[in-house]
Amino acid sequence: MNASTTEQLLARREKLLGPGNPLFYDHPVHIVRGEGVWLYDTGGRRYLDCYNNVPCVGHCHPYVVDALTRQARTLNTHTRYLHETILDYAERLLATFDRSFERVLFACTGSEANDVALRMARMWSGGEGFICTNATYHGNTTAVSKLSSIFPPFDGFGPNIRMVPWPDSYRALDNLEGEALADAYVSKVAEAVDSFKRAGIKLAGMLICPIFANEGLPVIPSGYLEKAIRLVREAGGLYIADEVQAGFGRTGKMWGHTGQGATPDVVTLGKPMGAGHPISGVVARADVFDHFRNNTMYFNTFGGNPVSCAAGLAVLDVIERENLVANAAATGRYVYEGLQHLKSRHECIGDVRGAGLFFGVDLVSDRERKTPAPDLARHLVNTMREKGVLMGKIGEFDNVLKIRPPLPFSPDNADLLIALLDETLSELTAALKP
Amino acid sequence: MNASTTEQLLARREKLLGPGNPLFYDHPVHIVRGEGVWLYDTGGRRYLDCYNNVPCVGHCHPYVVDALTRQARTLNTHTRYLHETILDYAERLLATFDRSFERVLFACTGSEANDVALRMARMWSGGEGFICTNATYHGNTTAVSKLSSIFPPFDGFGPNIRMVPWPDSYRALDNLEGEALADAYVSKVAEAVDSFKRAGIKLAGMLICPIFANEGLPVIPSGYLEKAIRLVREAGGLYIADEVQAGFGRTGKMWGHTGQGATPDVVTLGKPMGAGHPISGVVARADVFDHFRNNTMYFNTFGGNPVSCAAGLAVLDVIERENLVANAAATGRYVYEGLQHLKSRHECIGDVRGAGLFFGVDLVSDRERKTPAPDLARHLVNTMREKGVLMGKIGEFDNVLKIRPPLPFSPDNADLLIALLDETLSELTAALKP
Repeated sequence: MNASTTEQLLARREKLLGPGNPLFYDHPVHIVRGEGVWLYDTGGRRYLDCYNNVPCVGHCHPYVVDALTRQARTLNTHTRYLHETILDYAERLLATFDRSFERVLFACTGSEANDVALRMARMWSGGEGFICTNATYHGNTTAVSKLSSIFPPFDGFGPNIRMVPWPDSYRALDNLEGEALADAYVSKVAEAVDSFKRAGIKLAGMLICPIFANEGLPVIPSGYLEKAIRLVREAGGLYIADEVQAGFGRTGKMWGHTGQGATPDVVTLGKPMGAGHPISGVVARADVFDHFRNNTMYFNTFGGNPVSCAAGLAVLDVIERENLVANAAATGRYVYEGLQHLKSRHECIGDVRGAGLFFGVDLVSDRERKTPAPDLARHLVNTMREKGVLMGKIGEFDNVLKIRPPLPFSPDNADLLIALLDETLSELTAALKP
Repeated sequence: MNASTTEQLLARREKLLGPGNPLFYDHPVHIVRGEGVWLYDTGGRRYLDCYNNVPCVGHCHPYVVDALTRQARTLNTHTRYLHETILDYAERLLATFDRSFERVLFACTGSEANDVALRMARMWSGGEGFICTNATYHGNTTAVSKLSSIFPPFDGFGPNIRMVPWPDSYRALDNLEGEALADAYVSKVAEAVDSFKRAGIKLAGMLICPIFANEGLPVIPSGYLEKAIRLVREAGGLYIADEVQAGFGRTGKMWGHTGQGATPDVVTLGKPMGAGHPISGVVARADVFDHFRNNTMYFNTFGGNPVSCAAGLAVLDVIERENLVANAAATGRYVYEGLQHLKSRHECIGDVRGAGLFFGVDLVSDRERKTPAPDLARHLVNTMREKGVLMGKIGEFDNVLKIRPPLPFSPDNADLLIALLDETLSELTAALKP
């Protein structure tokens, strides 16, 4: 596409959608087609998608499109009539969880799911206080935006929120290690709990992404989650795990919270759930869930409709048939090794983190001091886009490459990613040398 | 379908989805297919749909399904890449509005749209107070549920909400009429505005459905809206029109607020927007909209994606090509006359109201005293379901038949509806006689 077209589109966006609509890249891409791990622009140029988790099974997966189409041709209505698809999907979905999760509620967006989860915790606990981290985002409703530390709500976070430092093993608190580090971060949670007590605010719960994705995908100090959640529970609060980013096989296991030593009371689901179709969910313990259901009316017109549930079922089918969780683990390990190799070649890579097919590459201007290099990250992301690879940035310091491709990512795709990253890092660091 | 299957489905619902999931009818229907104005159950029995506004163009309209399928096969991604479909749709949608509406934001549900609209009004006004009616519902997020008087939020409505009586010309306040009646209802809005002033709470706005759909589709006393909104504006608040039910041709004009003497500052859209695909929107004056956009980050992962916008565009196409707004007006008049004829034959019909293809039939046990007859309404809705016609109930007293068929409803469909209503009313009133 030529520059004038980009300018025309930008002008139309500004006029119709107003200011403040985020676009990726200094030179935005105009994507018109997607297939598997590839995206194509108007000029027919293809881009390796190393960013998008929503199309978790690959862009425009024919099996999902067919399921969606078949159901859209047959029936699409709300859930106040009986329908089997919602039940089949609920059963299949719950079967992927620990047995303690017995119920599910369907909505349309991760924001709606978190909005419901907050109310579940408030109703169950009788409290109003929530703990989240100091570098996170959980969604865009009025209530949920209060816990989204990286995009402060216009009217402030309010008295019911305490933000704790996310558990970082790289730029570790007080340069601690091991159990001492975990305990130091746990003590921040203890401080938050105490602060609520002093303020006379009862704790409702702690809402976290179990892999701290927005924070920068840290290696979580061993024992942190178990101890932190114990404190939350002792104070009467619930543990809400926001699996909107971590879920559906992303980390090489179905759910991010599995095997972390702390089972959530409530889990929220979104983004990859319908491979792009707007569906989200809240999965919870029966007692917590039923307390909510019995004490408030919640109905979502589009939530759990036959088309959304058909899309959700198809996504589970494809994940299973194509062994995408195992692929996320295996190809993920391969990418991880490639990134570690890059770290050995490039001083500006301070740390490589991640699990499954979700990576954070922490860029620094000084490896010793671990000084974040957000400008380098921006340059790198933009240069990679020019070379045909799409990725993003995350982290408290905006210096962490966010690499999160669709789950059918192959070793060949990984080779291309690593080779182009290597080349670009060499170019950029050469250009930076005096 | 046989009874045991219904019981099995109900048991599975209870187990998987928990308690408190609303179902229509004493004997719920198990719908498996839809086409035009018809729904079909597992036994192949067909039902005339006189309830569903979401599939506004008719169930499973092939043009909409094709547009959805074509785009789902091609690309479905978020709006941080450039894409023309969102711009084409935004342009087409805004062209259906008064010129004062220049911008649109896309989300997934009417609840999300109203949640954004409330924040727009709070940011623009610097206030926190909202006025709504005493028999309404605007959505399910934590913030929006505070203005949903018919489903009280578990923690109360809070100090920032004032509920005013909806403007009813049938059970009129103090038995007034004409301008005096309008002024009496306006005085309730004035009381709410004053009450906020006394409490030191600045007004943010008034959120209403312009046809007061949940309240029971009243004939709005002439001058009420104009005067009420003037008071709101004088106090610094905005007028938010919730067009989730009234919009997209339902009332025989494209938007419910048109020609009412008060132009909203913000309009919210939902339900019929994508004919079942989860898409919603907020349309507003540029100054109000841009103030929101410039002062807070709002991003909705699924909102405005190419598939949602393709569905939205297809709905606008079908409404235009099939003259559905004109049909809503013309067939609507025909249905209205039929209902008026029923009123002349059946004492239990106290009032017939509505515009376009949205009707409220107010059932009473005493026509003189206008005593609401909710039990009769329930019997009637259930009996009509057994006879193959689906409708619902609304209103402050739960006694108003809610008749709101897909927009391609024909005079033949109307004849069937009226004939079966006539028959059922005769049976039920005969059965009630001593």
